[in-house]
Amino acid sequence: MHTRAFKLVLEYDGGGFAGWQVQPGQRTVQGALEEAFSSLASADVAVTGAGRTDAGVHALGQVAHAKADVDLAAEKVAPALNARLPDDVLVRSAVEVPESFHARFDATSRSYVYLMGRSESPLWRRHRWWVRADLDLDDMRRAAEGLVGEHDFSSFCLAGSDPEHHRCRVEGISLEWEPAHGGMSIFRIEANRFLRGMVRSIVGTLVDVGRGKTTPEEFAAIAAALDRGRAGQTAPAHGLYLAEVRYG
Amino acid sequence: MHTRAFKLVLEYDGGGFAGWQVQPGQRTVQGALEEAFSSLASADVAVTGAGRTDAGVHALGQVAHAKADVDLAAEKVAPALNARLPDDVLVRSAVEVPESFHARFDATSRSYVYLMGRSESPLWRRHRWWVRADLDLDDMRRAAEGLVGEHDFSSFCLAGSDPEHHRCRVEGISLEWEPAHGGMSIFRIEANRFLRGMVRSIVGTLVDVGRGKTTPEEFAAIAAALDRGRAGQTAPAHGLYLAEVRYG
Repeated sequence: MHTRAFKLVLEYDGGGFAGWQVQPGQRTVQGALEEAFSSLASADVAVTGAGRTDAGVHALGQVAHAKADVDLAAEKVAPALNARLPDDVLVRSAVEVPESFHARFDATSRSYVYLMGRSESPLWRRHRWWVRADLDLDDMRRAAEGLVGEHDFSSFCLAGSDPEHHRCRVEGISLEWEPAHGGMSIFRIEANRFLRGMVRSIVGTLVDVGRGKTTPEEFAAIAAALDRGRAGQTAPAHGLYLAEVRYG
Repeated sequence: MHTRAFKLVLEYDGGGFAGWQVQPGQRTVQGALEEAFSSLASADVAVTGAGRTDAGVHALGQVAHAKADVDLAAEKVAPALNARLPDDVLVRSAVEVPESFHARFDATSRSYVYLMGRSESPLWRRHRWWVRADLDLDDMRRAAEGLVGEHDFSSFCLAGSDPEHHRCRVEGISLEWEPAHGGMSIFRIEANRFLRGMVRSIVGTLVDVGRGKTTPEEFAAIAAALDRGRAGQTAPAHGLYLAEVRYG
């Protein structure tokens, strides 16, 4: 017996999953990975993710770790897992790491991307939010810039989650316009940690700014209020992608 | 009673359809449109498409015409149809046209796009062909250029279709590399008409060139042979998009 630790980088289409975390009777990403890894190792294997994406949220670069006794060269682990996984989740890479590596606690930052379509599109219907308005991106950028730095994000935390504290350090935010695919706004945010529903709550409230319903100054006041009841709608899950997880 | 003619521009995700053309007991794009239009007009309405896309093929700009007695301003027709359509098909625009307009016979050219992914991707799994090889795009371009102009495309026609003749005039072909999304090759072709399975047969045979299995000279010989048996594999439907239909 020789237990080895692996770091996995994962892409998945969240549309068919009830989120990352294992739940009885539900199809989850963690569950699919644990099943594949357990089959490979012929023993129960636990898989721990860097972030618990909600139902419907996608990932381009989720990271997870797993410890298993597998008699396989490291570069063969990803193909062997992919052969056992459904086609809506993919191990992009699997590398061997020290046993102390922890996908969640060792992560120094996470990046999310949120896609908003200007027009309705059958081809994008499960992968971006169709926002039925011309958004004022400059106003949205002005509002979003105020979030950069370390702040209490209580105003943008979904009810039901109860972390120790609500402070997050936002390293960067951007909002770009992509004219292809009928026109798309691409929101990116990187932070040391995220609260439950934080990106979707920020995006939903920023869209109110883009629509002219809320001014950038009112957005700043909402953020400062530390009150979830002040924020706007929560943007739908299917526009959100966990893009990257970084380690020190 | 006042029958009006409409030209519809359509986008659809072909993944859930058994192709364009109505078939008993099958979910088809034409069937969905005829149902929506008939509901709007409270009478049977026939919808005629510019091209009959196969099962699984997508469209960014399919064109169709329909004649119906609807008491609605022209700009209200697309929203009214969309309200009656499933979310994997969308009327991008509906304009009133002379009754003589025919989506298929009046079209002067059609353009198709074919997407090939360099890497496996859960997010693209239903919208591009995963080609497990580094393709030599220069060789593929050299081979494809020989198709431009008016030729007999019998070598690239699927068995079972029996048109009057196999001559098509290819107006242009391009093959571009897109580094985003894990790397993607984008093939575009415009012609006055296409035979059944023609784009997928050309792409499949071009991929053999890109893999080094077939030389550009051998590709030219295959095209000149006028023999379907010589062509390579047929590329899968889910990478193909009917991109645009032009009228004189």
